[in-house]
Amino acid sequence: MASEFGRVPFFYNTEGRLVQVDYALQAVSRGSTTIGLKTKDFALLSSQVKPTRPLLEPAEKVYVVDEHAGATGSGYIGDVSNLVDELRVAAQRHRLVYETPIDIGTLAHQLSDHLHSFTMYAVRPFGASIILAGVDELGIQLLQVDPSGTVFRGSGFAIGQHADEALETVHVGYRPDLNLDGAIALATRAIEAVNGGRTEIEHGIIRSETRRFERRPPASEA
Amino acid sequence: MASEFGRVPFFYNTEGRLVQVDYALQAVSRGSTTIGLKTKDFALLSSQVKPTRPLLEPAEKVYVVDEHAGATGSGYIGDVSNLVDELRVAAQRHRLVYETPIDIGTLAHQLSDHLHSFTMYAVRPFGASIILAGVDELGIQLLQVDPSGTVFRGSGFAIGQHADEALETVHVGYRPDLNLDGAIALATRAIEAVNGGRTEIEHGIIRSETRRFERRPPASEA
Amino acid sequence: MASEFGRVPFFYNTEGRLVQVDYALQAVSRGSTTIGLKTKDFALLSSQVKPTRPLLEPAEKVYVVDEHAGATGSGYIGDVSNLVDELRVAAQRHRLVYETPIDIGTLAHQLSDHLHSFTMYAVRPFGASIILAGVDELGIQLLQVDPSGTVFRGSGFAIGQHADEALETVHVGYRPDLNLDGAIALATRAIEAVNGGRTEIEHGIIRSETRRFERRPPASEA
Amino acid sequence: MASEFGRVPFFYNTEGRLVQVDYALQAVSRGSTTIGLKTKDFALLSSQVKPTRPLLEPAEKVYVVDEHAGATGSGYIGDVSNLVDELRVAAQRHRLVYETPIDIGTLAHQLSDHLHSFTMYAVRPFGASIILAGVDELGIQLLQVDPSGTVFRGSGFAIGQHADEALETVHVGYRPDLNLDGAIALATRAIEAVNGGRTEIEHGIIRSETRRFERRPPASEA
Amino acid sequence: MASEFGRVPFFYNTEGRLVQVDYALQAVSRGSTTIGLKTKDFALLSSQVKPTRPLLEPAEKVYVVDEHAGATGSGYIGDVSNLVDELRVAAQRHRLVYETPIDIGTLAHQLSDHLHSFTMYAVRPFGASIILAGVDELGIQLLQVDPSGTVFRGSGFAIGQHADEALETVHVGYRPDLNLDGAIALATRAIEAVNGGRTEIEHGIIRSETRRFERRPPASEA
Amino acid sequence: MASEFGRVPFFYNTEGRLVQVDYALQAVSRGSTTIGLKTKDFALLSSQVKPTRPLLEPAEKVYVVDEHAGATGSGYIGDVSNLVDELRVAAQRHRLVYETPIDIGTLAHQLSDHLHSFTMYAVRPFGASIILAGVDELGIQLLQVDPSGTVFRGSGFAIGQHADEALETVHVGYRPDLNLDGAIALATRAIEAVNGGRTEIEHGIIRSETRRFERRPPASEA
Amino acid sequence: MASEFGRVPFFYNTEGRLVQVDYALQAVSRGSTTIGLKTKDFALLSSQVKPTRPLLEPAEKVYVVDEHAGATGSGYIGDVSNLVDELRVAAQRHRLVYETPIDIGTLAHQLSDHLHSFTMYAVRPFGASIILAGVDELGIQLLQVDPSGTVFRGSGFAIGQHADEALETVHVGYRPDLNLDGAIALATRAIEAVNGGRTEIEHGIIRSETRRFERRPPASEA
Repeated sequence: MASEFGRVPFFYNTEGRLVQVDYALQAVSRGSTTIGLKTKDFALLSSQVKPTRPLLEPAEKVYVVDEHAGATGSGYIGDVSNLVDELRVAAQRHRLVYETPIDIGTLAHQLSDHLHSFTMYAVRPFGASIILAGVDELGIQLLQVDPSGTVFRGSGFAIGQHADEALETVHVGYRPDLNLDGAIALATRAIEAVNGGRTEIEHGIIRSETRRFERRPPASEA
Repeated sequence: MASEFGRVPFFYNTEGRLVQVDYALQAVSRGSTTIGLKTKDFALLSSQVKPTRPLLEPAEKVYVVDEHAGATGSGYIGDVSNLVDELRVAAQRHRLVYETPIDIGTLAHQLSDHLHSFTMYAVRPFGASIILAGVDELGIQLLQVDPSGTVFRGSGFAIGQHADEALETVHVGYRPDLNLDGAIALATRAIEAVNGGRTEIEHGIIRSETRRFERRPPASEA
Repeated sequence: MASEFGRVPFFYNTEGRLVQVDYALQAVSRGSTTIGLKTKDFALLSSQVKPTRPLLEPAEKVYVVDEHAGATGSGYIGDVSNLVDELRVAAQRHRLVYETPIDIGTLAHQLSDHLHSFTMYAVRPFGASIILAGVDELGIQLLQVDPSGTVFRGSGFAIGQHADEALETVHVGYRPDLNLDGAIALATRAIEAVNGGRTEIEHGIIRSETRRFERRPPASEA
Repeated sequence: MASEFGRVPFFYNTEGRLVQVDYALQAVSRGSTTIGLKTKDFALLSSQVKPTRPLLEPAEKVYVVDEHAGATGSGYIGDVSNLVDELRVAAQRHRLVYETPIDIGTLAHQLSDHLHSFTMYAVRPFGASIILAGVDELGIQLLQVDPSGTVFRGSGFAIGQHADEALETVHVGYRPDLNLDGAIALATRAIEAVNGGRTEIEHGIIRSETRRFERRPPASEA
Repeated sequence: MASEFGRVPFFYNTEGRLVQVDYALQAVSRGSTTIGLKTKDFALLSSQVKPTRPLLEPAEKVYVVDEHAGATGSGYIGDVSNLVDELRVAAQRHRLVYETPIDIGTLAHQLSDHLHSFTMYAVRPFGASIILAGVDELGIQLLQVDPSGTVFRGSGFAIGQHADEALETVHVGYRPDLNLDGAIALATRAIEAVNGGRTEIEHGIIRSETRRFERRPPASEA
Repeated sequence: MASEFGRVPFFYNTEGRLVQVDYALQAVSRGSTTIGLKTKDFALLSSQVKPTRPLLEPAEKVYVVDEHAGATGSGYIGDVSNLVDELRVAAQRHRLVYETPIDIGTLAHQLSDHLHSFTMYAVRPFGASIILAGVDELGIQLLQVDPSGTVFRGSGFAIGQHADEALETVHVGYRPDLNLDGAIALATRAIEAVNGGRTEIEHGIIRSETRRFERRPPASEA
Repeated sequence: MASEFGRVPFFYNTEGRLVQVDYALQAVSRGSTTIGLKTKDFALLSSQVKPTRPLLEPAEKVYVVDEHAGATGSGYIGDVSNLVDELRVAAQRHRLVYETPIDIGTLAHQLSDHLHSFTMYAVRPFGASIILAGVDELGIQLLQVDPSGTVFRGSGFAIGQHADEALETVHVGYRPDLNLDGAIALATRAIEAVNGGRTEIEHGIIRSETRRFERRPPASEA
């Protein structure tokens, strides 16, 4: 009897959950453990560089979006990379139209719109979450955007594998007066704790002082 | 035998219910408990700020739509946020074309059209209900719009988790001559009663006196 | 074997019935009990105002379409409301092009086209029936339009919950020389009979004398 | 095994029948019994007016298409009505372009094209058959067009409920020198025979003499 | 397991056959028995006129496409008729552009393209085969085009019910020096043999002498 | 459980094979046995002319694409014929734009693009393989293009029924210094060996000397 | 119960994996074993030329994209070939617009965008991985792009059949100071080891010295 209905363009399950979005979140939860941290002086993005096949350069895990903004992500690499492109284009378009750097909230908002639209139609939602860091008139900003288009603001985020445990470590160790070295140590500890020890990590840093987003690839790469 | 039919573009079930809309309403019923209250002097929007992960700023729950109008919602955050964008664009477009603030009924009507169109085609209905508050020539206005596009007017609304119990509390405590503090106390009581005690709540207020919608984030945020 | 065929864009069942249209009619049959009555002097639209949640204003059940025409409906409220918009636009477009009020038959015809087109493609039919009342060169007009686009003319209609019993009451009590008060009493009786007593009812009236459609909200609202 | 294939865009069954067209014909066979008759002097369209709910005006069953042409149909009323619109537009367009009345064969041909195109794509075929009567340079014309777009010419047609029995009655009673009263009597007899007695019937008549299509509503309506 | 795959836009079965095309050919094989014959002096199209309901004029079975070309077909009448329209438009377009009659091979080629395109996408193939006869610079031409778009040239074709037996009769009786009467007799024999005796047949003839395609309706029609 | 997923837009099976393309190749393997042979002096296309129904002219099996190029194919005749049209248009377009004959590699490449695009979307791949022969600045060219868009170059090809056995015969008998008569004898032997004796064969020849593609229909046709 | 949901536009499985992309990767893993190697002085592409049918020229396995860039691939040949076209067009477009050779990272990025877009909609992902080699301002570049649009950079890649074993051989034998002959020997050894001995291999070489990509077809071809 049941088989007479429900065969088609389907988005919600009977409990009102968007199932494709839930599956996309599962794709995120298999990605590299990735941390975002913020104090009023700086924001830090830190992402596990997964051990790769021999002779392979580690993948870029932290991306410069614009001079004053950067991003990292977890999930399908092709999806992360495509979303970073969206961010870069949004930032450049803003510079062209307004001749000012885009503020980080607007950047997150445009990314959210893009992600959200892929949840409304018969296409697939992106299998990636993004953490954005930057500086604008409101100071240092740190935001996370999920496959559903939900935007979070905060001082500490963790996405990817074992995100909950990693966030717990961050939470315990976080103090608003962390300096950059302390933050890097904390993020490293959080990532290594869930990955069983010494892990390659790529960092990205934006400081209220320099207002310039900088990538800091894993030591081994230098 | 039954399996020979009914496999496709399907909207109604055999009882004539729009099943995807019903599922969308389930998504709403899992959202933050959210209250709207109105007297002839003011309208109040109050929404539970769900306890979040550590280091996360509480999400914005009450939105300024235009100087004279605000909104809150319950359901998928990405959906609420997208609908608030629709409202803001509608309000700005109205100002551009008519050089007057949009009246609140028209705002609700345009939102209703937008929501309704997503119930007619092979896309998904929005998983969010919106409560709108504002002031116009008719005075203080309070309206609720549901995923099906249905618009309600009233002096008291509740949506989200345990909406029915919350509305009951509001109903019992409501008097047309409530002052703002009494209304805030009532909304707070209604939300806390269904969430087992002390709850972070974000309020939004429009007063016939000032004709200006103001957000009032949770105390803890100040 | 049967499962090898018949899986797709499907509209008719094996008996040649449009199943989605039948389901849409079921949606109508769950709506408010709604009556239309006509004599040569006036037409009356009367719709049950369902008891609502506390603090909720009763929903508008009777709509002004144009100065000389009004409508009511039963079924999904979002659908009724969308169809009333169609009617209003049709009426305004007619005034703009021809500088005369649209005649009621043409209005019903355009509504019928709109409803019919949603039965031909892989979208859903509207879950609402509409009763139209107005006055034009042919005098007082009363028409009903169903989800399939079928148009009926008559002196008495009932749609929504317990429509058949309500129509029976109307039928028994109807006389071509009813005056307005008699008609209101009859419609009220028909609606109350099937709803177990005292019921809020919104009326709409068009008189050949005034040629102006007027809403008459429930007494309690005044 | 079978279930691995054959799930989609499907039109023919394994016997090469267009199943949706067959179902549409079933919709026609549930419609009002409807007769078309032709001699060289006139054509007659006669359609059963189904007993309706009380206070309902009988539906229009015979339609003026243009001064010199009329139509009737059986099946879904919304479909019949939509097809009559197609015919009227075709007739008017012809007058605008060629400044002459459209000939009846061309009218049927355009209707056929319209119906046929709805059998080729993933939409539904119309659930209605149409009988056309008119006069042109070839004299009195009578044609039937079916959901598949098939056009028939003849002196006698029956569609709708019990069409086969009704046609048999017509066949037995038909003589090429029938006069109009005889034809009306014959059509009436054919319709009443299959409907168990006295039946409301609407007629439409085109005469070679007057070259003007005239509706003749049921006696009770006059 | 199997049910996890293979549910969609499907055209070939596992043996590499186009199943919808095969079903369309079944529709053809239920059509009127239809013969095409050619000598260097003339081509003949002959199609069974199926016994129809009483008072129905026999359907047109042979169509003039242009002065120098005609066609007949078997299968769904609406499809045959639509394809003949395609042929007529192609012929007229050629005259408009090149001011010469279209050659018969080009006519068949354009029909083939039209039919073929309906086998590539998620629509249905036409349920009709067409036999074309005409005269051009290459002399008398006879071609058959099938639902898949395949074009055949020959001196004798049979399509529709019992096509194989009918073709066998034609084959046995065919001589390149047949005169027209002999050809008509042969085609008649072939059609009647498979239909159990005396059959109404419509013929169409193109002669190298007159270069003008002429319909010859069944004797009974004259 | 499995049945909850995987119902739609499907191209690959679990082993990563394009199933519709595999089925299309099956359609090819049911076609006429068809051979392509090349030496530095000439290329030969040879295709079995399947015994047809009586009175049917054998189908064209070898096609002139342009003065310097020809093609043959195996699979669905409508598909082969449509692809040959693509080739002809490509050749003519090249002449119009560049005023030189198109080179054979480019011709094959454009055909490959066309075929490939029909494997990417929810349409069907073509059920035909094509062998192209021609001459250009690189000398005599012989290429085969398959439904997936794969292009092969070589001195000997066989497609259609029993292609493997036919290719084996060709392989054993091939010598780079074959003259044309030897090549025709070899192709004939290869085709007849797999078809149980004397077979009608159509040949097509391009010689470096004359640079002109010539069809050579079966002896019986002359 | 489960069968009531989840039947349509589906991309993720319940574990959040993109199943069509996984299947496409399986298509890649059946392709020719293909190696990419890089030192600071040169990059080498080496691809197994699978033993083909007799008389067939070995397929091109290494492609010149632009003067300074080449590519190879593994998977469906039609897909590889189509992607190489994309690369060539991107390179030419860059030259036209900027009048400089495109840098290799940009080339890979554009290929990645193209591949990624085919994972978002209801079409199929490409069944091919590509290895790109070239030289630009950053020196010698070697990149791999997968069906999901993921881009890898490295000094050694292996794709296609037994890629893991082949990469292991490369890994063991790789030294940053390999000269070209050593690299060719290493790639050959890696490919032959997994293919059971002597294998035809096509190489492609770009040297920082000459900055010109050169194909080196298998010895047997020379």
